[in-house]
Amino acid sequence: MTLDELSALINRSLFADLGYTDEQGRPNIRRVFCVWHRGLGRHLISTNTGSAHVQSLLQNGSTCLYFADDAAFEGLCLYGKAVIHTDRPFKELLWNPGDEKYYPQGIDDPDYCVTEFVAESARFYRYDGKGTLSAAELAAFDADKQFENGYAKHTGKT
Amino acid sequence: MTLDELSALINRSLFADLGYTDEQGRPNIRRVFCVWHRGLGRHLISTNTGSAHVQSLLQNGSTCLYFADDAAFEGLCLYGKAVIHTDRPFKELLWNPGDEKYYPQGIDDPDYCVTEFVAESARFYRYDGKGTLSAAELAAFDADKQFENGYAKHTGKT
Repeated sequence: MTLDELSALINRSLFADLGYTDEQGRPNIRRVFCVWHRGLGRHLISTNTGSAHVQSLLQNGSTCLYFADDAAFEGLCLYGKAVIHTDRPFKELLWNPGDEKYYPQGIDDPDYCVTEFVAESARFYRYDGKGTLSAAELAAFDADKQFENGYAKHTGKT
Repeated sequence: MTLDELSALINRSLFADLGYTDEQGRPNIRRVFCVWHRGLGRHLISTNTGSAHVQSLLQNGSTCLYFADDAAFEGLCLYGKAVIHTDRPFKELLWNPGDEKYYPQGIDDPDYCVTEFVAESARFYRYDGKGTLSAAELAAFDADKQFENGYAKHTGKT
């Protein structure tokens, strides 16, 4: 798969799977809504601060993020770190009208945070083969990118 | 969610996400084709013995298996162990005509194995709430079950 094909897989996805080690030391997975991306390597996820996976990531930030399209038999697993943001900039960026139903106190609700996934390497799978990407390859592709709502861009919604 | 609703989620799924710790100690995920189930707690997956995730599971069998339906906002994460079977019974059960394209030597191809996932506990998520299942609850539901192709049963295909 080309880097542009991998980017297209990410941008047409609404969800991804976050893999982490939980507080009991078990491999754990949580399906997350994930549409804000900076190229291939950085991804933003709105989350309740009190969620079990956020609490686990605060203890151990080593994580992976998996995008897949079952119909196309495409999969991309990114390996890296999770950073939990509780300050305003990312929280403002991801806030949508109506999010008060999840976070009653609004943008500054202490139960609202943004998880930033930062990739250090990747592995991809498709019917025609698999391969890996290094941190340098990810950084080169992402150098001129900004965070944007990839799904909105993909679907043409604003 | 009731146990029958969780079983229905499993049976209408074609794929699940296997979470494990890889040989570099990283959380890792692999999307796997998974349609053979015994109730809620046991699941069979045909795999290439040489696959990275099988080699990792042989080193560390602690794993999780995640079934999700994004449209219904349903998710089920099972926690447990993976057992890699290289003997005939499970390999015969999952073999399909045409699988020689994946395993040229047939059922006895040493690169063909069956991963059995055995759950010890579970956590489920839906819009209307989340909850956990114990080993005893899983065992009670599964007591009278046999392995069967849940997707074939669900779709009515034989």
